[in-house]
Amino acid sequence: MTPAFEALQKELKRLPGVGLRSAERMAIHLLLENPGAAQTLSDAITFARERVRSCSNCGNVCEEERCSICEDSRRDDSGSLCVVEHVSDLMAIEKSGAYRGRYHVLHGKLSPINGIGPDRLNLSNFEARIAEEGVKELILALPNDVEGEATCHYLTDLVKTESVEVTRIGFGLPSGASVLYADSGTLKSALDARQRY
Amino acid sequence: MTPAFEALQKELKRLPGVGLRSAERMAIHLLLENPGAAQTLSDAITFARERVRSCSNCGNVCEEERCSICEDSRRDDSGSLCVVEHVSDLMAIEKSGAYRGRYHVLHGKLSPINGIGPDRLNLSNFEARIAEEGVKELILALPNDVEGEATCHYLTDLVKTESVEVTRIGFGLPSGASVLYADSGTLKSALDARQRY
Ligand SMILES: [Zn+2]
Ligand SMILES: [Zn+2]
Repeated sequence: MTPAFEALQKELKRLPGVGLRSAERMAIHLLLENPGAAQTLSDAITFARERVRSCSNCGNVCEEERCSICEDSRRDDSGSLCVVEHVSDLMAIEKSGAYRGRYHVLHGKLSPINGIGPDRLNLSNFEARIAEEGVKELILALPNDVEGEATCHYLTDLVKTESVEVTRIGFGLPSGASVLYADSGTLKSALDARQRY
Repeated sequence: MTPAFEALQKELKRLPGVGLRSAERMAIHLLLENPGAAQTLSDAITFARERVRSCSNCGNVCEEERCSICEDSRRDDSGSLCVVEHVSDLMAIEKSGAYRGRYHVLHGKLSPINGIGPDRLNLSNFEARIAEEGVKELILALPNDVEGEATCHYLTDLVKTESVEVTRIGFGLPSGASVLYADSGTLKSALDARQRY
């Protein structure tokens, strides 16, 4: 191994789900076995970095001010808003087809021990959305771990003066499992089985 | 999802061991959750691409003409040469400490159905190395699948006029593994390689 190789391996290892051995395998692929792919990947990162941003309304990925879901007039307008931790959770629910309303992506969850307070979450326009978009039901599609629970409590407190029903997706999912890795059927039952929170 | 997001996801999915869902998770990480990492990764790719090359002698990664193993005068000089498919195989063997001789990295294996012939492997200086470095034992550390077998046959033919002993690494049950969970192919190799006890 060489210094530049190890530097690349270290950066690849920072990607979610990538261990030391897979980072090594990726670096070899990019530098020796498929050098064209290295340039293409580097270009794709730069290209996407220049274009992709967070939707100013909901936090989803977009290339304009607001994302395609926020701009879609055909979305279900019965007043539900689904809160998720990550954009990948939003994408998983979209793929399941089990929900046709709007979303709010927090880009994280409260974690006092890790110093992640409400100011670190995408919440600046959250209360304004509840009021302005006439939200009647807030669906919390957050994980059922300690941080997820804390986040649910915080959001429930935040809207308690509004006439909003707060529900939480059903956990037919095994405890600790993430929305991201659930199959569409499981996500559908979880959404169908949501209960008053 | 947006066009630039999907383009990046597609490139990340080309990396070895990365599926559609993990590519999506990586793209979100790079573009929304950790945008500093995107620039750092892109820079690390460019930096490594400019510096890292294939050792002109053995095919290992290096930043000079020849790699640190080829240049290391303290390596075992008893005339063994270990042939591997990938640099990652070389690195795994190095980490094990089980071998202290020299290597030759093919960067692939023969696969007639995929149109991968000897010209696509790192073989241009192979016969010259056998002669010039006084190789006495050629250790084939290649997989025991169809392509690995074909590559072993090809290399054995290539050196048959030289006085070189060709050996192949043993196949069998991984250290600590149980017969119960081994697949049929592994059990077959383990039984074929049985030794008097
Ligand atoms: Zn949006
Ligand atoms: Zn070398």
